[in-house]
Amino acid sequence: MDREDLYRQIQEKKTMLCVGLDVDYDKMPEHIKGLATSEIAIKGHLFGGKTRSIIEFNKAIIDATAKYCVAYKPNLAFYECYGEDGIRALEATVDYIRTTYPGMFLIADAKRGDIGNTARKYARAFFETMDFDAVTLSPYMGRDSIEPFLEYEGKWAIVLALTSNSSAEQFQLAEKDGKPLYRAVMEEMMSISSPDNMMFVVGATKAEKLAEIRTFCPDNFLLVPGVGAQGGSAEEVMRHGANDKGGLLINSSRGILYADSTQNFAKSAAKVASQTARIL
Amino acid sequence: MDREDLYRQIQEKKTMLCVGLDVDYDKMPEHIKGLATSEIAIKGHLFGGKTRSIIEFNKAIIDATAKYCVAYKPNLAFYECYGEDGIRALEATVDYIRTTYPGMFLIADAKRGDIGNTARKYARAFFETMDFDAVTLSPYMGRDSIEPFLEYEGKWAIVLALTSNSSAEQFQLAEKDGKPLYRAVMEEMMSISSPDNMMFVVGATKAEKLAEIRTFCPDNFLLVPGVGAQGGSAEEVMRHGANDKGGLLINSSRGILYADSTQNFAKSAAKVASQTARIL
Repeated sequence: MDREDLYRQIQEKKTMLCVGLDVDYDKMPEHIKGLATSEIAIKGHLFGGKTRSIIEFNKAIIDATAKYCVAYKPNLAFYECYGEDGIRALEATVDYIRTTYPGMFLIADAKRGDIGNTARKYARAFFETMDFDAVTLSPYMGRDSIEPFLEYEGKWAIVLALTSNSSAEQFQLAEKDGKPLYRAVMEEMMSISSPDNMMFVVGATKAEKLAEIRTFCPDNFLLVPGVGAQGGSAEEVMRHGANDKGGLLINSSRGILYADSTQNFAKSAAKVASQTARIL
Repeated sequence: MDREDLYRQIQEKKTMLCVGLDVDYDKMPEHIKGLATSEIAIKGHLFGGKTRSIIEFNKAIIDATAKYCVAYKPNLAFYECYGEDGIRALEATVDYIRTTYPGMFLIADAKRGDIGNTARKYARAFFETMDFDAVTLSPYMGRDSIEPFLEYEGKWAIVLALTSNSSAEQFQLAEKDGKPLYRAVMEEMMSISSPDNMMFVVGATKAEKLAEIRTFCPDNFLLVPGVGAQGGSAEEVMRHGANDKGGLLINSSRGILYADSTQNFAKSAAKVASQTARIL
């Protein structure tokens, strides 16, 4: 999906919300956990056990939130922990979104980062084997580890800059040529890419940094996690981080997924989603 | 596997070699590629196509090199690019090593790094769902992203410090409290761990840095990639980086796997392996 299409989705739906599908079996409502005892067939594969619950939970959350968001962002860890069945559940989820809600922007939250030869394989995993629009990447190993992802037309690299977790600043504020490392990372990445294929991760818990970031990075989309469970405010993020076309994807995961642990969980998820990152 | 066991393996086998199983179908000998047209059953699952070739190639390489190395290190990207079948092929490879060559140290080269809540899921993926001894991790997000891996008895975190690729120094030499970032990373990680559960990645192409690193990090194992195809010298690495008990795992991947593209590939792999990282 290109930048204009993404802007258009944001304008039409009047939201910058990205829903993080960080689906944890242990946190699901009991009646969804209970589905793990039976199987369903999807495209010839039988899903049973926890991965069946994951698929059903994802479908319910997606159906409830699709009109209130422009993007979904499954985090790979929550699927990899179930081995190959987890990967299959992820692929089934991606397939469900692609066929049911075309026009949705799909982000693999994978935070990969490896030498060029290996990065090409990861790019293939997320952009060819799986049908994601974008993948999150860690910049620690430098430009080699990002470049292979930029070779795909219409696909995006989303590079970690200043993250939302409490230990983020330990290394991200190291100094590089008189600037904080996260800024050096962003400037280096901007020099090898364009706002059509590069976004950055800036945590919502760092909302006060967003205005400063916009002085040297006016055009790129920023993916902003940390709203909700991690304590960041969507309003603060929009005030400081939006550019004239929006330019933000504001992610909420746990705050939407686990808004309610009863039979009404999907309705509650829809309610939280409809209130988060809404452009009035 | 604990540190004493690993030292003992190194002493008994007289090698510090780790073989990287970064298996690329396109680089395999033709007769192994040809196996992709038929299927084999392993533990009730049928492997066909490229993942069948990968399993057969891995088994041949492992059988040829097991007496010349103490560790295997599959890189996840080379399996993830085949989706769930690739993950299954990885698990079959791990299972083959565990049952055929007990005492081998198994490293998941995954370079993961995410917030604590997510890092716990990755730890589960590599230490519970899969049976690895160690996983490589990226430190960009700070200590939060590493700590969950240290909670497993007998398991190891291997944190990227100074990597072997050409753009490594772009960010790894940023300054943190008057020190290069890779040193700040190592010192911080040493403060939350012990040499019994923490190793660091230092590229063989940075052999001249190894002596300096040993001044502030005398005891931890260093995992040293970059020997062979990437141009690093195992002799240089051992001279500068070994401590009194060895303390190194020297990785070679492509130089061993693709030593020969004929029917003799396994014999050639054994020959290169027997000559690499040997302690005389």
